[in-house]
Amino acid sequence: MKELKKALADNAKAVNGVLDDILMMGVGPEARVVEAMRYTSLNSGKRIRPFLVTASANLFNVDEAAALRVAAAVEFVHCYSLIHDDLPAMDDDDLRRGKPTCHIKFDEATAILAGDALLTKAFEVLADENTHGNSSVRVELISALAKASGAAGMVGGQMLDLFAEDHPLQMPEITRLQRMKTGSLIAVSCEMGAILGRASEKALHALHAYAHDVGLAFQIADDLLDVEGDEKEVGKKTGKDAAAGKATFVSLLGVERAREQAEILAKQASAHLEIFEDKGSLLSDLALYVVNRNT
Amino acid sequence: MKELKKALADNAKAVNGVLDDILMMGVGPEARVVEAMRYTSLNSGKRIRPFLVTASANLFNVDEAAALRVAAAVEFVHCYSLIHDDLPAMDDDDLRRGKPTCHIKFDEATAILAGDALLTKAFEVLADENTHGNSSVRVELISALAKASGAAGMVGGQMLDLFAEDHPLQMPEITRLQRMKTGSLIAVSCEMGAILGRASEKALHALHAYAHDVGLAFQIADDLLDVEGDEKEVGKKTGKDAAAGKATFVSLLGVERAREQAEILAKQASAHLEIFEDKGSLLSDLALYVVNRNT
Repeated sequence: MKELKKALADNAKAVNGVLDDILMMGVGPEARVVEAMRYTSLNSGKRIRPFLVTASANLFNVDEAAALRVAAAVEFVHCYSLIHDDLPAMDDDDLRRGKPTCHIKFDEATAILAGDALLTKAFEVLADENTHGNSSVRVELISALAKASGAAGMVGGQMLDLFAEDHPLQMPEITRLQRMKTGSLIAVSCEMGAILGRASEKALHALHAYAHDVGLAFQIADDLLDVEGDEKEVGKKTGKDAAAGKATFVSLLGVERAREQAEILAKQASAHLEIFEDKGSLLSDLALYVVNRNT
Repeated sequence: MKELKKALADNAKAVNGVLDDILMMGVGPEARVVEAMRYTSLNSGKRIRPFLVTASANLFNVDEAAALRVAAAVEFVHCYSLIHDDLPAMDDDDLRRGKPTCHIKFDEATAILAGDALLTKAFEVLADENTHGNSSVRVELISALAKASGAAGMVGGQMLDLFAEDHPLQMPEITRLQRMKTGSLIAVSCEMGAILGRASEKALHALHAYAHDVGLAFQIADDLLDVEGDEKEVGKKTGKDAAAGKATFVSLLGVERAREQAEILAKQASAHLEIFEDKGSLLSDLALYVVNRNT
């Protein structure tokens, strides 16, 4: 676990460097949108998704610079989704990672545009030959990321989440919602590492199964933090789901069983990595880490 | 001009068919976002940008099916930008193409998500091997579209446009704003036709110069419609710029000179097409058409 924490910190630092390089400030009044993109992207986030990209890529000895650029693209998509989800018309959140959300710091229009531009930038980065010399690898990365983040993935999940506000969902529906909303970007992070590594079908399936379990475990841990977490540590408003009367894993299973379930999923996730032997240890530790984090 | 009108109508019909095929309705409550995507995309729009793609591609005898899929991707980006620009936090428009705007018909959250999903879909379509068999052509298309629509292009232009609401701009700044906001998507439409056609540098430059002039002419015509157009015919609220005290080509040049300027630009645009001889006639007619349209 100590090794993982160091790897996470090193990775976050490296990813921040790449994000910073890519998001160069412009001149002219329109640079306000770049400022907003930088404000949301360059922060102290844990960079779990970028880590999944680079750690998955490492299983196949992928060039680090390529993996980091792909990791940056995934983080851009994640940050865009945070900006748009935080908007007043959506989840209406003022606080994120301990800082005012983008539309509070800037304004709603700038936040909408910053999200749009981050999403666009993700695809621009992936299409760039500096990311990978082989164009067929690049289109595969783009295709995977687009499918995971569009209406059949992350965006569809957010739509379901809004629907859930006044339609109490049951376990199978919540599982589906979370698989789309959070799980699809987590899964594609691992998948992109595998694409970079030209992984075998077998390795790809193992990573996919791992990502599926980690994604759900991550979400259950998130729901637990919403109930039990300290607002200052978590860096965003807690108790929101209960206040909104929204069904979550925790409201349906109870705290105890939800925690058990998250731990079972984490162990299950690790088990899928056996084919990678020692090389899978960081990803395996990450599965335990996501269920035991306090932020 | 009669030939152009038929070509525009045929193209719009073909593009609508492709859009309809791509945006398949899903099941489950999240299909609401697809419904909103379809609502905004499948309508009676003139499909100028898709036409620029297919007409440019035709200069190089590109396969029609490929050109139509690329045209659909550009239209997705255009439609996403309309949805987001119409939001209350942006231009706050209730009417578009004679129908309630997306956030009026659905709600703000759904409109934001529908825009996000349309943008994502554009890149998914371009990355798909059904669009073009050669992956290096596909990444070139993606790269061009991402650059044109991101912070350095369309999104940056919209940011400038918001800035212009309380900072009266002069001609050079308005020209730059419009080149980013409207011009970049018009230019990339022609460029993508050229990429599909593996055009020579010379042909690419000619098309680029054409698109630059058409883009500005198009915008001046838009400003004229805002002043002189009939709200019912135009299909959106008119007189908005003047009411907001916003500087436009028309407010700076006056109606007469603005119209002259648009016509000069249209002729200049046509002149750039000479190297294509007869094959350029539809694009040449289009330049005249955009300055003389009444919707």
